[in-house]
Amino acid sequence: MTKAETYLGHWHAHRDVLTDLVKSVGEEHLSFQPWAGAMSFADLVWHIVSTGYFFADSAALGHLGMRPEKADLSTMSALESSISEWTQKTHDRISSMTDDQFANLVDMTQLFGAKLPATALLQTNLDHEIHHKGQLFVYARLCGADPLPFFVKRG
Amino acid sequence: MTKAETYLGHWHAHRDVLTDLVKSVGEEHLSFQPWAGAMSFADLVWHIVSTGYFFADSAALGHLGMRPEKADLSTMSALESSISEWTQKTHDRISSMTDDQFANLVDMTQLFGAKLPATALLQTNLDHEIHHKGQLFVYARLCGADPLPFFVKRG
Repeated sequence: MTKAETYLGHWHAHRDVLTDLVKSVGEEHLSFQPWAGAMSFADLVWHIVSTGYFFADSAALGHLGMRPEKADLSTMSALESSISEWTQKTHDRISSMTDDQFANLVDMTQLFGAKLPATALLQTNLDHEIHHKGQLFVYARLCGADPLPFFVKRG
Repeated sequence: MTKAETYLGHWHAHRDVLTDLVKSVGEEHLSFQPWAGAMSFADLVWHIVSTGYFFADSAALGHLGMRPEKADLSTMSALESSISEWTQKTHDRISSMTDDQFANLVDMTQLFGAKLPATALLQTNLDHEIHHKGQLFVYARLCGADPLPFFVKRG
C-alpha cells in the first residue's frame, strides 16, 4: 500500500462522516452559532473542507498551495455539493503524491515560520479536521440533532 | 527514534493542552452540560483520560486492559491531579512498548469485534482524544472562557 493510500484510508474515515453530520441538522441550523462571534455550523464545515484542500495542495506542491474561494453555503444542497466537490479535489491532490513526496520538505514559512515534511503537514491536517469535526458534533446536538453518526466511518 | 517516542511526541502535543483547557474555566463550570444528558465538562475530561489509559494498557498487554476507576472530579485540584496521574501512567505504558509490539495484534474482540494491530489501536486512541478535546473547546467557550489555548501544544 502506498503512503497516499494509507493516508487516504485514515482521512476518509473522518471526512466521510461530514455529510452525514450535515444531514443530521435541518437547513435552518446552518447559520447556528453557539456563542456570539463563533463560526456558524456551515462556516465550520467550510473551514474543515477548505483548509483540507489547502494543506493537501501545499503538501503536493512543496510550498503554500491554493485556498479555495468561499463557496455558497446558504442551503443544504449547496453545502453538500461543496463538501463533495472539495473532498474529491483533496483526494486527487493526495492521491497524486509519490511515497518520496511524503518525505519532502514543504515551505510553510509564511504560515508556520518553518519548512516541514509533507507527512507532518498532512498529519496536522488530519488532527485539525478531527478537532473541528468534534466541535460540529456539539453544534449538532445543540441544534437538537439526535441520533448522530459515529465519529469515524469504516468503509 | 523509537515508535513509542514518535507516538508520545504526537500524543503529548494534544494531551498537554488538557490542563490548560481545564484551567481556562472556573471550578463552577466543571459540572456544565451543554444539553440535558450530555457528559459534563469534568466527565468528558475523564472520558479522554481514562480511555487513553485503557487503550494504552490494552496495546501494551495485547488484550483488553484495565479501565481506571472513576476518580474524584469534584474540584479543580482533584481533576488536575487525576489528569496528571493518568497522563504519567499512560505515558509509562506506551513508553514500555518495543517497536515489535506496535505491530502485534491486540485482541479487542469483546469491544470492537476484532483483533487489531497495536499501532491502529493507538491511532484510534489519538483520534478519539482529539475528537473529544475539540468538543471541550466548545464547552469552554460556552462557559465564557476566553482566550483558550491553541489546540496543540508544541514542546
